[in-house]
Amino acid sequence: MTFKRATASEDALLRIFTLPEAPDSTLSVIEQNLSQNLMGFLKDSIVAIEKPLSDIERDFQQYQIPEMPQFVSDYTDDIMKNLVAHSVHTSSPSFIGHMTSALPYFVLPLSKMMVGLNQNLVKIETSKAFTPLERQVLGMMHHLVYQQNDHFYQSWMHNANDALGAFCSGGTVANITALWTARNQLLKADGDYKGIAAQGLMKGLRHYGFDDLAILVSKRGHYSLGKTADLLGIGRDNIIQVPVDNNNKVDVNTMRTIAHKLELNNIKVMAIVGVAGTTETGNIDPLNELANLAEELKCHFHVDAAWGGASLLSNKYRHLLNGIERADSVTIDAHKQLYVPMGAGMVLFKDPTFANAIKHHAEYILRQGSKDLGSQTLEGSRPGMAMLVHACLQIIGRDGYEILINNSLEKARYFAALIKQQADFELISEPELCLLTYRYVPKKVQLAIEKARHAHDLNTLTTINQLLDGLTQLMQKQQREQGTSFVSRTRIQAEPLLDTPSVVFRVVLANPLTTNDILKDVLAEQINIAAQDTQFLPKLLMLAASDC
Amino acid sequence: MTFKRATASEDALLRIFTLPEAPDSTLSVIEQNLSQNLMGFLKDSIVAIEKPLSDIERDFQQYQIPEMPQFVSDYTDDIMKNLVAHSVHTSSPSFIGHMTSALPYFVLPLSKMMVGLNQNLVKIETSKAFTPLERQVLGMMHHLVYQQNDHFYQSWMHNANDALGAFCSGGTVANITALWTARNQLLKADGDYKGIAAQGLMKGLRHYGFDDLAILVSKRGHYSLGKTADLLGIGRDNIIQVPVDNNNKVDVNTMRTIAHKLELNNIKVMAIVGVAGTTETGNIDPLNELANLAEELKCHFHVDAAWGGASLLSNKYRHLLNGIERADSVTIDAHKQLYVPMGAGMVLFKDPTFANAIKHHAEYILRQGSKDLGSQTLEGSRPGMAMLVHACLQIIGRDGYEILINNSLEKARYFAALIKQQADFELISEPELCLLTYRYVPKKVQLAIEKARHAHDLNTLTTINQLLDGLTQLMQKQQREQGTSFVSRTRIQAEPLLDTPSVVFRVVLANPLTTNDILKDVLAEQINIAAQDTQFLPKLLMLAASDC
Repeated sequence: MTFKRATASEDALLRIFTLPEAPDSTLSVIEQNLSQNLMGFLKDSIVAIEKPLSDIERDFQQYQIPEMPQFVSDYTDDIMKNLVAHSVHTSSPSFIGHMTSALPYFVLPLSKMMVGLNQNLVKIETSKAFTPLERQVLGMMHHLVYQQNDHFYQSWMHNANDALGAFCSGGTVANITALWTARNQLLKADGDYKGIAAQGLMKGLRHYGFDDLAILVSKRGHYSLGKTADLLGIGRDNIIQVPVDNNNKVDVNTMRTIAHKLELNNIKVMAIVGVAGTTETGNIDPLNELANLAEELKCHFHVDAAWGGASLLSNKYRHLLNGIERADSVTIDAHKQLYVPMGAGMVLFKDPTFANAIKHHAEYILRQGSKDLGSQTLEGSRPGMAMLVHACLQIIGRDGYEILINNSLEKARYFAALIKQQADFELISEPELCLLTYRYVPKKVQLAIEKARHAHDLNTLTTINQLLDGLTQLMQKQQREQGTSFVSRTRIQAEPLLDTPSVVFRVVLANPLTTNDILKDVLAEQINIAAQDTQFLPKLLMLAASDC
Repeated sequence: MTFKRATASEDALLRIFTLPEAPDSTLSVIEQNLSQNLMGFLKDSIVAIEKPLSDIERDFQQYQIPEMPQFVSDYTDDIMKNLVAHSVHTSSPSFIGHMTSALPYFVLPLSKMMVGLNQNLVKIETSKAFTPLERQVLGMMHHLVYQQNDHFYQSWMHNANDALGAFCSGGTVANITALWTARNQLLKADGDYKGIAAQGLMKGLRHYGFDDLAILVSKRGHYSLGKTADLLGIGRDNIIQVPVDNNNKVDVNTMRTIAHKLELNNIKVMAIVGVAGTTETGNIDPLNELANLAEELKCHFHVDAAWGGASLLSNKYRHLLNGIERADSVTIDAHKQLYVPMGAGMVLFKDPTFANAIKHHAEYILRQGSKDLGSQTLEGSRPGMAMLVHACLQIIGRDGYEILINNSLEKARYFAALIKQQADFELISEPELCLLTYRYVPKKVQLAIEKARHAHDLNTLTTINQLLDGLTQLMQKQQREQGTSFVSRTRIQAEPLLDTPSVVFRVVLANPLTTNDILKDVLAEQINIAAQDTQFLPKLLMLAASDC
């Protein structure tokens, strides 16, 4: 593609740092449109039918930074056509496959303000009031989890040396921060030994006499935990995946048995992780039982509530996370069900002195005694995203979240009931939060499975399951490409799947704009797609027929 | 503070997800103001004279999430007064203390568009065209550093299994990603040994027969490297800080000697790091010599060009970074001198297969063979910040950056000359990029230092230096509080400081709006502040007088 190119001059450059786009320019008009009607803008700008990725890539082939400047309006035309048109309408009410949702409109102008202010939260010299604001947000979220008293927050919230938590770009960095801190607390300085932060993992293990470290978590734990184990030098093999019960909740007794076996082999259980909202099914581990086990093992107890943490804002459903207040650290993402734009996660520490184990200083910032937030974060320079969390908490209020959270959970229960009413669908996981999984299995095939199961006919079961996997994958892809609605898919092992790893549809019902009618349409569309399949369905039906 | 509170209702909540603020509302009016005149908005909204932090904190004391919703306009009034008014005017032309700068205006509406699109770059299902766009940005930056041929980028840029780099929230995550990958490549799978990612650091060291790992870097290296060593389990003590020459460049011969000594002790040098733009002085290590050393040692060569990388866009000054193209990995921050808002860093890999050492998968995303960017990033869910880098590269163009970078470097040379003309200032580090350090030392005190130095009078030298440290700190703080201009400070050890760690002013001249007159005013203001000091200056002058 070729564009009109501007000429670089000092004056022209200074203008882009001082003057705004003319109000009738392409970018200004688009921005006004965006302000006045975000949902309309997205609906009109994003094309429904998916363009093949290889075609999209053709528009992003140039690898040389262009020599000459480009007019803003030309650039805007270009990205409206090549980028925006082929983006994903993540806030569409029928996009129910992932954890992105519609956003409250006020986050748009506030984001622009945040960008315009361009604060850097690593240090107070480049953020000033944003630093106490971020500490307040961490304080509010800490209180949501731990509900300490007035004196506690008076003492700790704005304390220079300690931290109620760390604001992060997302839940992965939050999980890493929690387990990094836990590792460093475990192998901390002791006599002549200066601690793992200074001397490294090997000397730490040697000093404390451990052969290795392990982290125990349900097999439904988020993939970021494996990444964390790799990063921290613990190794993915030492993230021990514990089986779950029929409700996708970790089996605490098995975890206990594994933990004792590890400790007998001189492998120290560094932490156990409770999942409060598994990414795939939305189930919550028995947090109180895990807290008991952590006490028995004298190990760190982390709760990954990246998804489920928002449910603490519902008085009606808060009880689902009972025991979370006993966790040493908790991850909560604001860019999930707090309805904040992408890029806002948090880790909270029960004990405000806990993060001292990862404290670091420099000469030009983060000096001893400063209130610079960067001395206890994994990231360095960071934007003022905490402002958007602050805005949502204040403007929506707990009462507002009560309605949003309850509606989403109840919508998931409605959808589960709907699926169960359909002869040709199987609900795989009941929703505990607003997530559920299911698959399309024609009634006749269900009967064939039943029969094969009774006859212990493993061959038939395997064949059927492979075909169903293919069908589910095909249906998910085709539905996405049609552009009306989107569900995601995953592969899980669960009791209704006869414990065979199988592909299932995965649905997240967080978008407040998703209606019951949309849910009905999603299933109707899937039935249509399946009916047209010539690759898997005929074979499945043939198998089922020959089987009768 | 008390506010009018709204009542939570389902209808009201749905409205905030669908309807925009009325055009004449507080927030809309502010947003229009922001669009029409960002610099005016910042100047008018941010109060000049600093409010004590403890007073600001009083406005962020509430630790309970409010029960009732709040009207957007009330919230806006509130944060304009409590947050925006006490933010830091990071884009002010006289804010020359840190690496934040004025932003080109078009990033504001584009940021809003990015937030409205709310793409999640971890996976293509929630980002589609943003994924090829991010790969293109990484390709362009890779080409800027490594200048490979057409065939190279055709083969690799959009390749599903490999990566030319990783987009990160900032330079710290970029540095961590580079060294994490280097560690994993070093201790990779080998025969029955499954590699460090799976089996952890201890088994990795044992398998390869190393007693420990070390990373060598100049003592001017960024503090994030210490944090990286801690996180990766290597330990801060194993980041070996190598002395620098009089130009703040690492002494490669000393580094070589240290490296050989380490290897004799069976400590494997995992990586050497070149600094291309030290944070404190802006100097660039001899990258070609470091590349030679890395070849000798058969170790990873990382270049931290978080700051200086942007200078590759200047044909005039690109040669300052000669040798960077021999690095195995390079960190560049876009939110520094590429003039992109906070939250945009990158690491680039010379070898596109390099990041396979940190590859990870999950069942519901990042599946084998997918083009999901998240399989080779430290972070998980991430916003589409790459779009803003893309916009700046296209709209400003290489020609535009040539002017911006050259002007900033030449402005630094002008300021250095100005400082040298002043009798009462000492230039501590000559600018190589657009950073420099200096301090205020009355001529008489300079003479006294000279005299004491010749007489080897260490006592007097120490006393003078302590007083100068106090004076510099006081001046820096007072200038910041007065709110007209801002320089930062650091403590460095350098030849003009007789190798005594001393406090100095630190200046970064990246803002295109900073004029020569502003620089004169900064010095004039400092002279004024010093003249009014009653704590350090009288003592210094007395010492200097008694000494004559």
